[in-house]
Amino acid sequence: MTTVGCIGGGQLGRMLALAGVPLGLSFRFLDPSPDACAGDVGELVVAPYDDPDGLDRLADGAAVVTYEFENVPVPAAERIGALPGARSLEDGQDRLREKKLFRSLGIPTARFGSLAETGLPALVKTRRLGYDGRGQRRVDAAEPLRDDELAEELVDFERELSIVGVRGSDGRMRFWPAGENAHRDGILRVTSAPAVDAPQGEAEAICAAVMEELGHVGVLAVELFEVNGRLLANELAPRVHNTAHWTIDGSQTSQFENHLRAILRLPLGATGALAPCVMVNLIGTVPPLGDLLGLLGARVHFYGKEPRPGRKLGHVTLLDPDESAVEGLVALANGA
Amino acid sequence: MTTVGCIGGGQLGRMLALAGVPLGLSFRFLDPSPDACAGDVGELVVAPYDDPDGLDRLADGAAVVTYEFENVPVPAAERIGALPGARSLEDGQDRLREKKLFRSLGIPTARFGSLAETGLPALVKTRRLGYDGRGQRRVDAAEPLRDDELAEELVDFERELSIVGVRGSDGRMRFWPAGENAHRDGILRVTSAPAVDAPQGEAEAICAAVMEELGHVGVLAVELFEVNGRLLANELAPRVHNTAHWTIDGSQTSQFENHLRAILRLPLGATGALAPCVMVNLIGTVPPLGDLLGLLGARVHFYGKEPRPGRKLGHVTLLDPDESAVEGLVALANGA
Repeated sequence: MTTVGCIGGGQLGRMLALAGVPLGLSFRFLDPSPDACAGDVGELVVAPYDDPDGLDRLADGAAVVTYEFENVPVPAAERIGALPGARSLEDGQDRLREKKLFRSLGIPTARFGSLAETGLPALVKTRRLGYDGRGQRRVDAAEPLRDDELAEELVDFERELSIVGVRGSDGRMRFWPAGENAHRDGILRVTSAPAVDAPQGEAEAICAAVMEELGHVGVLAVELFEVNGRLLANELAPRVHNTAHWTIDGSQTSQFENHLRAILRLPLGATGALAPCVMVNLIGTVPPLGDLLGLLGARVHFYGKEPRPGRKLGHVTLLDPDESAVEGLVALANGA
Repeated sequence: MTTVGCIGGGQLGRMLALAGVPLGLSFRFLDPSPDACAGDVGELVVAPYDDPDGLDRLADGAAVVTYEFENVPVPAAERIGALPGARSLEDGQDRLREKKLFRSLGIPTARFGSLAETGLPALVKTRRLGYDGRGQRRVDAAEPLRDDELAEELVDFERELSIVGVRGSDGRMRFWPAGENAHRDGILRVTSAPAVDAPQGEAEAICAAVMEELGHVGVLAVELFEVNGRLLANELAPRVHNTAHWTIDGSQTSQFENHLRAILRLPLGATGALAPCVMVNLIGTVPPLGDLLGLLGARVHFYGKEPRPGRKLGHVTLLDPDESAVEGLVALANGA
């Protein structure tokens, strides 16, 4: 049996396995937590992400090793030949490098660098290890930045979109329809896809340029701001992405399956949407399962994680919902 | 976490778990084989199906116990309160009892009983433990039947259909569109669903009458012959069924998810078809994964079982395929 190793055993690894087990694949995860939720659907190696022995056990006999988050130490990933490759990881885990990558490719971004370069007010972010709004603050008056910080122009965007694509080792690419994302407290709450009237071609061109430059193999997401009908690239993630979870239920091939196809040199699957989809994240608490399943057409995904404030515990996707169905789901997700 | 126990750890149990893990459920299987393929996605208790200690370990802490095949010893199932209940199991595991059940409900069947009752030629089947054409023979001249055998009239049917339904503990029922089935060597090869011009209402009425009479909770399948536009009930299976595997990819809610919803007293999901589907079984050998994934829109399901002649190793579902796509898949499945 073909084994896939994955650095990180969270919900992304878990959904990777749920997509791969039907393809006859088996999974092994490296995670420092013995409770890592991907352990329900594969073998769990409990060790730090950069533990040489843990990495060797992860890679032992595996056809390929991948990762579910971009803060993997690059030497650790290189040691076991992880895909996507080191270049994707290096640029994806450093906000300054990714902005410079966008700039080098002629992809528009908000201004970034020092506060002198961005003007005020600005967002100041740590270059590394931030996610879900952590490691970010708004700055309204000049102050010194630490070396590991980066300022970004505060952009008054109309909406945030994301484009998620996949690239095979043969250079072929596919893209899912762009999603429109709504955040609260820095955490993604809702993605609607396909985003209505999105500049799909422009978004795909951005994602394609990035993937080609990186020699990327696997799934990659780019978060975009739409400002006056123009797209600004904000961040990239060299991995499967929360804003494409709708593809599990709403696309011809999910992002998880196509990521596996790409890293295993298998033909990529079609990426069309089956219907307009709305995905709602379950943050901090989960409503009773029966309440969610009582919503017509709800596709429920619980991650098997212990509730904790601000933690992503699951998501629910509605296919072709009307407005009241979405409102009902959002109310449930908010604990109403 | 809610645990579901399942007697039998084959592909049906495996697909039950793949449907249930996203609902936050965990799974435990009882199977005499340490290689049982459901062990990839749940805990495996290795013991005979009727081993009291094994059954107790299976049921320990489980919210509910179900089964993936109908040849579970009834006392074993009753010991741990398995759903569907004992009546479904008793009638589903004995071909004579199930025929008598159909008759008692006024559901037409082919003639059955002794060879004097059926006439010649006839099919002689063992009352118990037959599947995939095993335990069947054609009889052209009078001969004595064993006590554990049953004769059935050889019906010159136009096509075989199956109707698969689900019933909740509250008595509510849902039905998937009927499938049209093609067998070879007694083993299901292809199901097309929704079956074109099928008498859906008549088929549902048969399935509903059976489920109500049995007080069935969970999924139940009835195989039907269509003869001159009339339906004859042939067999029932008190469980998820191969002829509804297309529902994983092609229905609003799969048979596996709805079976879990039913036995866990959760609301049932909608059962409409998303598109016309063709499901092809992979028997004895599996084609290379890359060849299958190269077929546009193919949804591949490998069961992780060792190849063996006549063994069901996987299935592939095509959504809305044209004739040449189906031919290509069937040729691949046949080893061309």
